[in-house]
Amino acid sequence: MYRTHTCGELRLTDVSKTVTLAGWVQTERRISNALAFVDLRDRYGITQLNFSGDIINQLNETPLGREFVLQATGTVNERSSKNANIPTGDIEITVTAFTILNKSAVPPFTIQDDTDGGDDLRMKYRFLDLRRNAVRKNLQLRYAVSRSARNYLHENNFLDIETPFLIKSTPEGARDFVVPSRMNPGQFYALPQSPQTFKQLLMVSGYDRYYQIVKCFRDEDLRADRQPEFTQIDCEMCFVEQEDILNMFEGLVKRIFKDVKGIDYTETLPRMTWEEAMWTYGNDKPDIRFDMKLCNLKFPAHTFPGRPDISSLIAGEFAVFNDAETVIAVAAPGCSEYTRKQTDELTEWVKRPQIGMKGLVFIKCNADGTYKSSVDKFYTEDKLKAIANAAGAKAGDLVLLLAGAEERTRKATSELRLEMASRLGFRKPDEFKLLWVLDFPLFEYDEEGNRWVARHHPFTSPKPSQIADMINNNPVIENAAEYLKHPYASIKANAYDMVLNGNEIGGGSIRIFQRELQEKMFAALGMDKEEQQHKFGFLLGAFEYGAPPHGGIAFGFDRLCSIIGGSESIRDFIAFPKNNSGRDVMIDAPSAIDDKQFDELQIKLNLK
Amino acid sequence: MYRTHTCGELRLTDVSKTVTLAGWVQTERRISNALAFVDLRDRYGITQLNFSGDIINQLNETPLGREFVLQATGTVNERSSKNANIPTGDIEITVTAFTILNKSAVPPFTIQDDTDGGDDLRMKYRFLDLRRNAVRKNLQLRYAVSRSARNYLHENNFLDIETPFLIKSTPEGARDFVVPSRMNPGQFYALPQSPQTFKQLLMVSGYDRYYQIVKCFRDEDLRADRQPEFTQIDCEMCFVEQEDILNMFEGLVKRIFKDVKGIDYTETLPRMTWEEAMWTYGNDKPDIRFDMKLCNLKFPAHTFPGRPDISSLIAGEFAVFNDAETVIAVAAPGCSEYTRKQTDELTEWVKRPQIGMKGLVFIKCNADGTYKSSVDKFYTEDKLKAIANAAGAKAGDLVLLLAGAEERTRKATSELRLEMASRLGFRKPDEFKLLWVLDFPLFEYDEEGNRWVARHHPFTSPKPSQIADMINNNPVIENAAEYLKHPYASIKANAYDMVLNGNEIGGGSIRIFQRELQEKMFAALGMDKEEQQHKFGFLLGAFEYGAPPHGGIAFGFDRLCSIIGGSESIRDFIAFPKNNSGRDVMIDAPSAIDDKQFDELQIKLNLK
Repeated sequence: MYRTHTCGELRLTDVSKTVTLAGWVQTERRISNALAFVDLRDRYGITQLNFSGDIINQLNETPLGREFVLQATGTVNERSSKNANIPTGDIEITVTAFTILNKSAVPPFTIQDDTDGGDDLRMKYRFLDLRRNAVRKNLQLRYAVSRSARNYLHENNFLDIETPFLIKSTPEGARDFVVPSRMNPGQFYALPQSPQTFKQLLMVSGYDRYYQIVKCFRDEDLRADRQPEFTQIDCEMCFVEQEDILNMFEGLVKRIFKDVKGIDYTETLPRMTWEEAMWTYGNDKPDIRFDMKLCNLKFPAHTFPGRPDISSLIAGEFAVFNDAETVIAVAAPGCSEYTRKQTDELTEWVKRPQIGMKGLVFIKCNADGTYKSSVDKFYTEDKLKAIANAAGAKAGDLVLLLAGAEERTRKATSELRLEMASRLGFRKPDEFKLLWVLDFPLFEYDEEGNRWVARHHPFTSPKPSQIADMINNNPVIENAAEYLKHPYASIKANAYDMVLNGNEIGGGSIRIFQRELQEKMFAALGMDKEEQQHKFGFLLGAFEYGAPPHGGIAFGFDRLCSIIGGSESIRDFIAFPKNNSGRDVMIDAPSAIDDKQFDELQIKLNLK
Repeated sequence: MYRTHTCGELRLTDVSKTVTLAGWVQTERRISNALAFVDLRDRYGITQLNFSGDIINQLNETPLGREFVLQATGTVNERSSKNANIPTGDIEITVTAFTILNKSAVPPFTIQDDTDGGDDLRMKYRFLDLRRNAVRKNLQLRYAVSRSARNYLHENNFLDIETPFLIKSTPEGARDFVVPSRMNPGQFYALPQSPQTFKQLLMVSGYDRYYQIVKCFRDEDLRADRQPEFTQIDCEMCFVEQEDILNMFEGLVKRIFKDVKGIDYTETLPRMTWEEAMWTYGNDKPDIRFDMKLCNLKFPAHTFPGRPDISSLIAGEFAVFNDAETVIAVAAPGCSEYTRKQTDELTEWVKRPQIGMKGLVFIKCNADGTYKSSVDKFYTEDKLKAIANAAGAKAGDLVLLLAGAEERTRKATSELRLEMASRLGFRKPDEFKLLWVLDFPLFEYDEEGNRWVARHHPFTSPKPSQIADMINNNPVIENAAEYLKHPYASIKANAYDMVLNGNEIGGGSIRIFQRELQEKMFAALGMDKEEQQHKFGFLLGAFEYGAPPHGGIAFGFDRLCSIIGGSESIRDFIAFPKNNSGRDVMIDAPSAIDDKQFDELQIKLNLK
């Protein structure tokens, strides 16, 4: 061993011990010709080295530099000027001998919390970026989360069972990455998008409780914060109903918060139906760290059956509202004194292509009890007051109203709500609000194909009370305009998402375990018998040999870690991430391969 | 939850409780019209259900079958005839209500320890095979090994850090599996053969101690017990020398034996140099559960410099020995009374193409002190006695002698030693003998290319004392016939293998951490500067920024589990293994992909 101690462990109680440390030179401070201090860094901390006396000559002969790898032997002494900011701050090592184990070129950016390296440079030299405290803490947190999850699942009788990575391509929603098979020319493996069917087979095999922290792969065009390879905490249980899963995995997340953040999350997680989430927050993963609920002033009757119609509040001469399918308001607390410039800027914000609205209506609820609006000429102050009241606005608030087609308007209002909350500082990274969202629709309507697609995946079970609706009805949609009246439109799934601070961190479902129902599901998604057999024959077959009721969940591990770490970016929590083009710029992958490889695999390029 | 208890937990102390169980019907025994017993099975055990009274009518109406999924409610009662073989054998459940949760077709083979299913059938219906106790125990043992390893490594400050799966193709020895990149047409990712360079980068990044239990991929023609995807326990440490690694991972394996098998392995692992292993056992992973050391009667001087020459013992008229490069003997204890038929059969065994010898010479050391040999006419009884003594044979033993070219003869004698030990019952699956093999040659000579190849991998460091030999000599082999005289031939690696019962279960090395030495190594293997930069530029670059001394090891997790589980076959310890053609016959992968996929990936088939 090149060291007797790490750079993080020596204390006053070690004074007068002879020790050897090894690590990286963080800084060197020349105090005089006869005295120099070096901060030596390793994963565990920083220890001050005191070079004085004869050793200075050697230091002059073999000078150090930033990031040099140094081994130093000496005596632990009490420091004259202590550093209360670091655990080793009471002591220093009076160096008697040292060896430069390796030199370092000058790093292209500083190895500090606030580095001067841009993103591209940091990724190219990721091995240096990983030295920074901030990144190291993220990866250590990631390990702590996995360790905590494994301990909890172990204590609850889950078995970690590895499923294969070279499987079969069955593209449904997302694209598979494929792997040509040299031994089976013309055939390909696929990398798993998830171990879904394998974990279900393990339930059929009676393994009862399965988990895996496992890499998954999706060949999608990468949005800002997606990676072609990502990690899931993947779990499945036998003989359970939805309630059992919710309880088990609520427990998992609470345990992680306890172990990793020291947060005692004792209350039961709130639960919300999908419909309630869409009605109240405009999306299915609401951030409930703050209130700002939506006020549905107008909406198409079929989307939220049974909800109160308060459209009389906006009845009048304002053509935009009159013509709109949907009008939704949201109150921004304390924003009534926004200037014209500010409201104009907000209007531009909602008109951006990503939001796509035509304009923004606002009502200022002045502190003096008066109301002022951009649509004053259409509504009396009493009307404005009534609308503001419906939106839950108080004096001093600013009510923002969007109008347009249902889907776009709801999404836009949700985005606007989040944007205002960010601006108002309501989205605190160190506050954690968990939530279950339940009762998702089983199917989504695909307008282009006039057909049903699975909202979760084709293995998700309908609510037990609606199995008959599914079995006994033809999935074909005769009348596209009235697809919402098709019995399938109202079938709810036995599915659940766990939401943390406005992010879906986990999702799962109770699975179909009867062959007949699974075949009906595949048929509903437009798969004929032959395709069913080709793609999922093994699963249908397995369901004939005593498949038990089962269900499970998968957590997005990268995302979970990043939110717990208080960051928006999953990349900061992955040791070697890829960029938006799916490239690893450090190793320069993907790259060309040899002719010999093409030859052996019996494939060739077909570039357009 | 469909159950209140598992099928493995009820005891006499639970008598009179009302419980609900769920599981699979293992057997049904109709005792009379009024009484039937059902053994209900789950992962945790088997519990006897007693159907009597009114419930029998319901059982008649909805009869059960093997592997039906059953939920049963009833009262726990003490059994009249107890079963001491199972933990629940004192009780049974008097059933008051039951539900068939799912039916089962008749399984294609029995779900029992000794099943009637052949290998092919078992693999096609792997989800049923996995139900068998024998297979379930293997996978549970596998989980126990991983859990134990994780705990030990955690306690020793190792961090589990995930490395990428979509990396760069840098084929050295084995072939890479490659993955076409849709977003970067014409370019390919490779699946990692190991996380080698990434774990080294993590050391450069100062993570100090890294581990991962991780899938690796090699596109090789599959021998009986190889899988295209396999799992490693992959570890790396900073600021260590070989001795530190040996101690740390000796500790890991001892911990696994303690946790998983209850074996207190307190003694220090024996250590043996590679040369000693080759000399004494004829291979570099000797099975030391038994003795039967080789006796080197004749060998080429350059292969084992400094070893004693006892070839005078076989000097004489026997042309086969005179002409042979190498003659090696091994004594089989207690086999002196082998019949002519038996020795003939052994002769045929060594003549098989896999062994490839021309014949077998034997000396019977009779119990009465006389000696009898197949080469009596060439050697006097005194000569035979001297040879037998040199081979360590006692009265009653049979000395077996092979002669021929060095490499083939040594390998054949090693195989013969193992074969005889197997026949003699010396290779007990429940006896575990661990061993370190050290000081491997750094290079192997490639006759075809008249060049050096890395015996371990190109990142392995030479012994510190031999670094100068490497740096200061030209790797080019001027005279192929005398390659053994080249300075590189005698450079030993700072590498080590852990051997368990004649299997290499782990291997590793102290790594090169200096750019100059790494470049010299790449050059020695025939890589020019450009190729070095293209394939490993990132690693050479990293070595310029303060790379610390480091080293590591990787354990073959599948193999380790199978040996600890007392089995020769790794397939039995993998949930969903592939066959010798790399196929998963259950899901039928690999398989054809869609035209759309070819189109998007911009590749096409080029079948020969």
